[in-house]
Amino acid sequence: MASSLLTSSKFPFPSPFPSPKPSIFLPRPTSIHVPPPKPPSFPSFPSNSFPKSLLVSSSLNPNPPSPLRRPFYIPNHIPDPNYVRIFDTTLRDGEQSPGATLTSKEKLDIARQLAKLGVDIIEAGFPAASKDDFEAVKAIAKEVGNAEDENGYVPVICGLSRCNEKDIKTAWEAVKYAKRPRIHTFIATSGIHLEYKLRKSKEEVLDIARSMVRYARSLGCNDVEFSPEDAGRSDREFLYEILGEVIKAGATTLNIPDTVGITMPGEFGKLIADIKANTPGIENVVISTHCQNDLGLSTANTLAGACAGARQLEVTVNGIGERAGNASLEEVVMAIKCRGEHVLGGLYTGINTQHIVMSSKMVEEYTGLHVQPHKAIVGANAFAHESGIHQDGMLKHKGTYEIISPGDIGLERSNEAGIVLGKLSGRHALRDRLKELGYELDDEQLGNIFWLFKAVAEQKKRVTDADLIALVSDEVFQPEVVWKLDDLQVTCGTLGLSTATVKLIDAAGAEHVACSVGTGPVDSAYKAIDIITKEPVTLLEYSMNSVTEGIDAIATTRVLIRAEKSHFSTHALTGEAVYRTFSGTGAGMDIVVSSVKAYIGALNKMLGFEERYQTKGSVEQTPVSA
Amino acid sequence: MASSLLTSSKFPFPSPFPSPKPSIFLPRPTSIHVPPPKPPSFPSFPSNSFPKSLLVSSSLNPNPPSPLRRPFYIPNHIPDPNYVRIFDTTLRDGEQSPGATLTSKEKLDIARQLAKLGVDIIEAGFPAASKDDFEAVKAIAKEVGNAEDENGYVPVICGLSRCNEKDIKTAWEAVKYAKRPRIHTFIATSGIHLEYKLRKSKEEVLDIARSMVRYARSLGCNDVEFSPEDAGRSDREFLYEILGEVIKAGATTLNIPDTVGITMPGEFGKLIADIKANTPGIENVVISTHCQNDLGLSTANTLAGACAGARQLEVTVNGIGERAGNASLEEVVMAIKCRGEHVLGGLYTGINTQHIVMSSKMVEEYTGLHVQPHKAIVGANAFAHESGIHQDGMLKHKGTYEIISPGDIGLERSNEAGIVLGKLSGRHALRDRLKELGYELDDEQLGNIFWLFKAVAEQKKRVTDADLIALVSDEVFQPEVVWKLDDLQVTCGTLGLSTATVKLIDAAGAEHVACSVGTGPVDSAYKAIDIITKEPVTLLEYSMNSVTEGIDAIATTRVLIRAEKSHFSTHALTGEAVYRTFSGTGAGMDIVVSSVKAYIGALNKMLGFEERYQTKGSVEQTPVSA
Repeated sequence: MASSLLTSSKFPFPSPFPSPKPSIFLPRPTSIHVPPPKPPSFPSFPSNSFPKSLLVSSSLNPNPPSPLRRPFYIPNHIPDPNYVRIFDTTLRDGEQSPGATLTSKEKLDIARQLAKLGVDIIEAGFPAASKDDFEAVKAIAKEVGNAEDENGYVPVICGLSRCNEKDIKTAWEAVKYAKRPRIHTFIATSGIHLEYKLRKSKEEVLDIARSMVRYARSLGCNDVEFSPEDAGRSDREFLYEILGEVIKAGATTLNIPDTVGITMPGEFGKLIADIKANTPGIENVVISTHCQNDLGLSTANTLAGACAGARQLEVTVNGIGERAGNASLEEVVMAIKCRGEHVLGGLYTGINTQHIVMSSKMVEEYTGLHVQPHKAIVGANAFAHESGIHQDGMLKHKGTYEIISPGDIGLERSNEAGIVLGKLSGRHALRDRLKELGYELDDEQLGNIFWLFKAVAEQKKRVTDADLIALVSDEVFQPEVVWKLDDLQVTCGTLGLSTATVKLIDAAGAEHVACSVGTGPVDSAYKAIDIITKEPVTLLEYSMNSVTEGIDAIATTRVLIRAEKSHFSTHALTGEAVYRTFSGTGAGMDIVVSSVKAYIGALNKMLGFEERYQTKGSVEQTPVSA
Repeated sequence: MASSLLTSSKFPFPSPFPSPKPSIFLPRPTSIHVPPPKPPSFPSFPSNSFPKSLLVSSSLNPNPPSPLRRPFYIPNHIPDPNYVRIFDTTLRDGEQSPGATLTSKEKLDIARQLAKLGVDIIEAGFPAASKDDFEAVKAIAKEVGNAEDENGYVPVICGLSRCNEKDIKTAWEAVKYAKRPRIHTFIATSGIHLEYKLRKSKEEVLDIARSMVRYARSLGCNDVEFSPEDAGRSDREFLYEILGEVIKAGATTLNIPDTVGITMPGEFGKLIADIKANTPGIENVVISTHCQNDLGLSTANTLAGACAGARQLEVTVNGIGERAGNASLEEVVMAIKCRGEHVLGGLYTGINTQHIVMSSKMVEEYTGLHVQPHKAIVGANAFAHESGIHQDGMLKHKGTYEIISPGDIGLERSNEAGIVLGKLSGRHALRDRLKELGYELDDEQLGNIFWLFKAVAEQKKRVTDADLIALVSDEVFQPEVVWKLDDLQVTCGTLGLSTATVKLIDAAGAEHVACSVGTGPVDSAYKAIDIITKEPVTLLEYSMNSVTEGIDAIATTRVLIRAEKSHFSTHALTGEAVYRTFSGTGAGMDIVVSSVKAYIGALNKMLGFEERYQTKGSVEQTPVSA
C-alpha cells in the first residue's frame, strides 16, 4: 500500500466553499511529441446564470423543469462550476453483480428510465464482453442516445473497454450512433495490480494508456474517459504522471476509482484534491469518482470527492454492483439535493428525483437484487413509521422525524387503509392510479393489467397500490414469450409425494403435457417443465415476497437460473469468462402457480438471449495492437 | 434549523492524530447548587500499556485474546485514549423497526451473542414500554450482565428511559441486577421538537434533564447516559448549556444523536468537536455518537464522530432500526479494524470480529429483516465474486480485490462444489462442521438437527453448508411450541380451487383436523389452521428464500403477523402505542409445508408472548414527578 496515502488525512471534508472558479475554457495545450489525433473541437457554450434559488428545488411538481438548469454539455468542461454530472453505471458495473444479468430489452428499458431520471451519462455496458452486450449498447445508443428533449438534454452513451485496440474499436462501433458517444477505457495502476494482475512495469502501463487514449480519439470519439484502476492504492507520483499523459493524449474525463472500497472519506477527498493540485493539464478535464462500498462508505466517499473538486460521480441505482456494490444514485443525489446548497458549497445535479422510486423498482425487478427494508431512500421502511395510535398528536409536524418528502422521490405515501380500487373501478380509474404510481403504460399493457386487476378484485375486497404494483411488475417486466403456461395441477403435503402435471404451449401454439414427482410442489412442477422444455439448467436462487397484507395476498416469486453449459460473458476487470444467469418473476395468489410462472419467465429470458461468446483474450495476454 | 450548524464545516475528517491525551481522571467538580445525590465513586484503574502492534490484529486465530486488550471499565472515563467503546442498541433501537418484535427468549439469545462479540454496552431495551420489555431487560441483566469472563469482561447492561421518574425507576429496577448497570435517559433539545413535540420552553427542558439525571444517580446508579434528542438540529449554545448541566448532575456518558440522519460527516464531526471544546466539564465524561442512516451516511458520520473525540459509538447489528436504520456494527467495527491504526489515529475496539457473521444471521432470523445481497461486510455477495473460469490465474493474489478476509468475520468461504456432507456422514462430522460454521449446539439441538440432516441427505445428493445453516435456523431459532404441525395435504393449480387439510397437535397432545378452500395452497392451509387455532391475525408479510442451489433446494419461509386487537408496546421516542408484530420461519423442501411451519411458528411466538400493556403517558403529558 502507498504509505503516503495512508498517513495523510488532513483534508477538510466537506469543504464549505465552492471549488475555485475554473479557468476560462480554452483548447488544451498539446504536446508536440504526443499530439491527439484530432484537435479538440467542442462547441462554444452559452453563459450560465440561473438564479441560485432555483438550483436546489424542493418543488413537488411532477415535471419540474430540471433540464433547464442543466448546463450545456461539453465533454471536458462544465460551464457551471457547481454543477455535478451523474454517471450511471447500473447497466455495466451493476450488471456485474452475481445473478444480475439483463437482456437487451431490459437494458433498453432501464436506459429509457435513466433518461427520464435525467442522468448525464449512461454507461450502457462493456461491448467487448459478448455479442449481446455489444448489441444492447448499440440499441441504447441509437434510441436513448438520440432522444433529445425540448431542452436539448440527451444522455451521453458510454461504453467500457479495456486498454486494447480491439476493445476500444468494439466500444466505438457500439456507441458511435449516439448523439453524444463516449469511450471509457481503463488500466490498473496500483503496485499490487501491476505485479499480480498485469505483470507489467509502470513504463509499459503508461505507454499502453497513452497510446490507447490516442487510439480512441483517432476513431473520431471526442469524449474519452480514462480510469486508473485501483487509484486509491497507486503510487501517487505515478498516478499524476499517467493522468497527465492521458490528458495530453486526449482524455476528457479522468475517473478515480476506489476499486476495493478501502479508503476513508477524508482520504478519498484528499486523493481527489491531490490529483487536482498535481496533475499537469487537469484544469482542462472533468474529474470523476467511482467508489465501491466494501466498508459502507461509498456515499460518503463520493460526496467527499465532489467537495474536493470532482464534478462527475459514478453511481448505480440501488447501489448494486460486485461485492458490496457501488455508491447508490439515490443516496448521493438526495444528499446533494438536501444539503448541496447549504453544506456542500452549492453543488447541484440535473436529476429529476421524482423518478427515483420507479427506477429503483425497475432495477430491483430486472436484476433480482432485493433492496433491504432499511435501505436509505428506497427501502420499504425508509418512509414507514411504526403504525400506531397517535396518543396526543405529537407528530403533527412531519419535519420532526422526516427530512425528505416521499413525494420528492416519486413515492405516494400509502393510505393506512390502503383501499384504492375495488371491483367496480373502471379502466380509466386504473390508468389514473397507475400514472400516480409512476407507471405510464401503453394501451396493450393497460388492457392486460386491467384484466388481471379484475381477476384479483373478484377475489379480494381491497385492491391496494401494492397489489397494482405487483401486477404491473408481472406484466411490464416480463421477457418475450417462448413457452407459456396453460394449466397446472399439483398435490403435495407432509406425505412427501408431491406430484405436478403441467400443460405448456410453445411458440408455435402446440400443447405439451407432462407430469413428475418431486420433493415439493415446486420441485415436481419444475421437473415436469424440464421434461417438456429439455433445457438443462441449475436453479441458483428462489425467493418469494407477498407484497400485500392479508392471507389472500399476491405473492411475487423470483428465480435465478444458470444454463448448464453455455452463456458466458467476459468480466471487464478480471478478464475472466463468467456464467450468465437469468432471473424470472411471477405474481399471483397461488404461490405454486407464481413459482411456475417465474421459472418459465427465466427460461424464456435465457432462450431469448442472443448468445455468442465473443472475446477471449485480455490486455494482459494480447498485444495492445492486436 | 440552526444556521450556525449548516454553514460551518471546516472540521478536518478524519483527523490523522490521536485525540489529545485526556486529563488525569479526577472526581468531577460539582456545583454547590446541584450536587449529585451520590459523589462519584469509581474504582482506580490499572495503567494501560499494551504494545501498539497488538491493537489491530488481523490474526485468523478463532479465539484471539481481544478481551485482554480492553481497558478496565470506568463509567465516565476510558484509560486508553484510543480505545472506542461499542454500544449495541439492536435490542432497543433495532427492535423498533417495523415488524422486528422480539420475544424475551430471542432477546436473551441475542444478548448472549453480543457478549460473545464483545460489545462494551448492550442497550437491552426500553423497560417502561411493556411488562415483557421489562422482564427481558431484567433477564439479560441477571444472566448476561453477570457472566464475567476470565479477563474481567462483562458487558454493561443499559435500559432506556424517557426523562420522567417512572421510566427511570422502571429502567433501574430492570438493569440493577447487572454487574455494570446503566440508565440511559433522553429528551429532545431541537427547536422543532421543543415546539411541536414537547411544547416546552428551553428552561423547562433543561430543568427536567438536570433533575432526572440527578434522580437516576439517586437510585444508586453510577453509570448514567444522557441524550439530547435531535442534537444535530439543536441550538448550539443551548446544547452546551444542557450538556454542562447534566454533567454536573452526574451524567457519565453524553450521547449525541443525529436523530433524523440529515448531517454530513464533516458537520457531524464538527458538532462533536464543538461539544468537546465548549461544554463545561466534558473532560470528565465519555462522548458518544448515535447516527441514523437516512442519507446512507451513518457509518461515515459515526467514524467522523470518533475522529473528533467520541469514544462510544452506538450501532446495531446489520444496521437495523427505524426508517433507514442506524450505523451498522459490522461496518463501523471493520472500518476501525482495517484503517484504525493507519488512518484513524490509532483507534481500536474490543470486538471479536469472528462472531460478526453469526450475530448478523441471528439478528436477521429473529427480526425478519432481510439483509440485501450487496450489504457491506455481511451481505451474501460481499465476498462473492462472479463464479467463472480463471483464464490466466489473474486472481492469484487475493489482495487485488479483497480487503477483508472472510475468516476475519467468521465466514468460511464456501467451496465451489459445496459438497460437505453426504448421507453416510455421522453425528460427529455434523457437529464438527456446524462448529466450523459458528454454531455451538447442545446435545438435544444436535440430535434434532441430525435427524433433519438425515432426512435431507436421503433426498439430496449434496448437503451443503447452506443447507445445514437453513436446518439449524429452523431448529435453533424457533419459539416454544404451543401448536405443532402433524399432517398436511394440499391440492392446487390453475383451476383455482386450492384445498388444504391440516392436522395440528396442541400443547396437551390432542389432535385437531380441519380443511379449507382458499385462493392458493398457502391461503387454504392458513385458513384451515385459523379454523383450529381461532386466533384472529393479519398476515403482514410473507417471504421465502431458497438458500441452496438446485431445484430440490431447502426453502426458508418467513411470515409476519399481527394480532387483530391486542399486543401493544410504547414507542420510546414518540410515546405512541404501537402494535406488536410476530415473525415465524420454517424450512423444508416443500414450500407449502415450510409456509405452514412458519405460520405456526409466528402463532406460537405470539401466544408465548407475555402481554401486559403497561405505560400510557409520556413525559410530555405526565408531570416528571409522576
